[in-house]
Amino acid sequence: MGINLTNFLSSKSKNARMIDFQDLDHIDGLSISVVSANLYKDNRDDLSMFYFRDGANYASVYTQSKILSENIKWNLNQKSKKIYSLVVNTRNANAFTDKQGYDGLKKIADSLSKKLTEKQIQDEDNPKKILPKEIIFGCTGTIGEPFPYDKIITQLPGLINKVKYTQNKFIWMKAALGIMTTDTKPKLAMEECKIGNDKIKIYGIAKGSGMIHPNMATTLGYIFTDASLSNDILRKLLKKNITTTFNAISCDGDTSTNDMVSIFSTNKVKNSQIKSIDDKKIRNFDNALKSVLLNLAKRVVSDGEGASKFITVNVKKCKSEIDAKKIALSVANSPLVKTAIAGEDPNWGRVIMAIGKAGPKINLKKLSLKFGNFKIVHDGKLYQSYDEKVVADYMKNENIDLNIDISTGTKNFTVFSMDLTNDYIKINSDYRS
Amino acid sequence: MGINLTNFLSSKSKNARMIDFQDLDHIDGLSISVVSANLYKDNRDDLSMFYFRDGANYASVYTQSKILSENIKWNLNQKSKKIYSLVVNTRNANAFTDKQGYDGLKKIADSLSKKLTEKQIQDEDNPKKILPKEIIFGCTGTIGEPFPYDKIITQLPGLINKVKYTQNKFIWMKAALGIMTTDTKPKLAMEECKIGNDKIKIYGIAKGSGMIHPNMATTLGYIFTDASLSNDILRKLLKKNITTTFNAISCDGDTSTNDMVSIFSTNKVKNSQIKSIDDKKIRNFDNALKSVLLNLAKRVVSDGEGASKFITVNVKKCKSEIDAKKIALSVANSPLVKTAIAGEDPNWGRVIMAIGKAGPKINLKKLSLKFGNFKIVHDGKLYQSYDEKVVADYMKNENIDLNIDISTGTKNFTVFSMDLTNDYIKINSDYRS
Repeated sequence: MGINLTNFLSSKSKNARMIDFQDLDHIDGLSISVVSANLYKDNRDDLSMFYFRDGANYASVYTQSKILSENIKWNLNQKSKKIYSLVVNTRNANAFTDKQGYDGLKKIADSLSKKLTEKQIQDEDNPKKILPKEIIFGCTGTIGEPFPYDKIITQLPGLINKVKYTQNKFIWMKAALGIMTTDTKPKLAMEECKIGNDKIKIYGIAKGSGMIHPNMATTLGYIFTDASLSNDILRKLLKKNITTTFNAISCDGDTSTNDMVSIFSTNKVKNSQIKSIDDKKIRNFDNALKSVLLNLAKRVVSDGEGASKFITVNVKKCKSEIDAKKIALSVANSPLVKTAIAGEDPNWGRVIMAIGKAGPKINLKKLSLKFGNFKIVHDGKLYQSYDEKVVADYMKNENIDLNIDISTGTKNFTVFSMDLTNDYIKINSDYRS
Repeated sequence: MGINLTNFLSSKSKNARMIDFQDLDHIDGLSISVVSANLYKDNRDDLSMFYFRDGANYASVYTQSKILSENIKWNLNQKSKKIYSLVVNTRNANAFTDKQGYDGLKKIADSLSKKLTEKQIQDEDNPKKILPKEIIFGCTGTIGEPFPYDKIITQLPGLINKVKYTQNKFIWMKAALGIMTTDTKPKLAMEECKIGNDKIKIYGIAKGSGMIHPNMATTLGYIFTDASLSNDILRKLLKKNITTTFNAISCDGDTSTNDMVSIFSTNKVKNSQIKSIDDKKIRNFDNALKSVLLNLAKRVVSDGEGASKFITVNVKKCKSEIDAKKIALSVANSPLVKTAIAGEDPNWGRVIMAIGKAGPKINLKKLSLKFGNFKIVHDGKLYQSYDEKVVADYMKNENIDLNIDISTGTKNFTVFSMDLTNDYIKINSDYRS
């Protein structure tokens, strides 16, 4: 299972390299520690700590679900200017755990803040007293089960002892593996860019739509940079770029109570101050951040449960971006489209159906549809040279592009998705225990 | 495949009988004819004519898709006060066929109106000249293929010759079979009721979500009554009752270009005139019509592709019916909920997820959830006596009820759905040819 990514993971950032796991190295100001709290009862790594010894500026975007996990509520309640630690556990989503889950986080934050303060006193010239509110959490796993905060607290000394002040490819791989649930592959991405003349690193890890034991398709994404950027700039850049990356992927249309994507800047590179995201000096970083987010988002989709094909739905020339997104999601989420693609059937009628049901008004006479580069519908009519055999051959590819021209405006949107296979059903209808 | 309906098809109409095919008999003023135009190339019945020798009042509701099949465009263009014939073909949806498809319908209507006029002259004391605009069409099947109007025209003499002026259970069964595509069972329902002191019949047939060869989950529903009711009253009654019946079912969330539900009244029973749907005299008919529509809608769901379980999602006490419907559809359409039910897993966390992602604001402290009669979540907390083993036993039933109390208002909505099985994927990923 899993799709080969080499075809589409070409970065759009100018000075980007086509990267895989091996290239991630050290980000100054970041320390990482990964252990097993035996939450899965098989001694796999399931507890990770990202420690910023001098603090980090940060921004997060969270799930749009109206039911939030307790860790997201915790994160939203902390109003610290700097964050000193992000703690991520798997196996238990800490959702629908109410007071028990929230209080558990408080106990972990209390204990960890004390231990990190001790570490500051031991290691730093100007030790900082770390406060519980300077710690945030990522959780993923089953919802509705009591949050095993005690098992996590027991492992805090281990987390502190094993913390690495410098990273190499092995530590990044361990971290990317440590936040996985039923993902089949760790997800890492990096870009290098410049702010003014200063070289900047942007590294990221993510987990995706593993849903066998846990109940959710929780997406977690964590981006780390050594740039100096304010919380406000980070927030604006993250918000701007999440729309076309993590918010443009769709595995099965379901949304978790725990989705979370965060960016942390350690401020170790003393680049010139950025006061606005319209500042030309940030453009290169902006593009690189988008590449990292898009790279990770595509990895999440391509490792979606049971996925055998990676689908790109390009909707072009709509009246508004909202319309374009509605149409793209309608196509990407349609079970009939997804099963046809799994069956390598160029069943373009189902794509037309999904365009029609999306909501926005369609001028059929202007509608065009291509599968890859193969014209199927042109100006609302079946293309004269349409040859089903040729398109049927195209459907055998691992990467399928559906190119839809609405031709009523100028706005575009692209959604990334996967096919719907027997394996998806098999994985998700298995009883949890 | 297919679910036993006896558990839930108890009618809510007072003087309703629990009916199956055998009970449908004659509706005065209606004639039926079913033949094969060999559209499927296997000589199955695929062309049906419903002929109203003295005309019928009528009303229709059509698909919400922004892309309409040519027959729906035709039907919307005819503004006749009375309809003399409904012609239904399968195998070809006449969608995305443009002028060829529309002109094909015109040719059929031209030819059939002449032939029916000849029949009027032959059979009636006061023969009526039947016009093309007094004929409407139902089409279902593959989209984007040329509409085989010539094959249909060739069969018109056969349709006229075989027309039956009276119906019995065999003719109704033949009609219900004749409009099927990949349905595994014919769908029929009936109720009897009264308007004032007059006994009224309401008979209906439907087809559902067959999608192997055709590309769509087209739903067709045709209701026939011998009552005297104006087009205006029929339209209001159909619109009122479609919301909680055909518009409350969800197989896979996809919508066809061809969906159509119509009601025809032959006006043969000279009941007292009804000028408003608030008239007490119509209440009994109103309820009976709802029962027929609900009965047919449930049969469509239970015969949904690959369905092994029938799911009822009751969402109660919302601020608005729109909110309740959004939440119910979010649960009913969630692939994670549907696969869990297929796997007989009481995975209530996925239901919570689907409630959360629906959109309407949720007060978690007030939320309650039952599977059948088994309390799982009560006032936002896992119910103290919740016993997963007991609920796991409940999940083995063919009919699964998800009862959700939002408890922020007074409005309810119920959606009917089915589970998502390997068979669904198998059926829909098979190549068409």
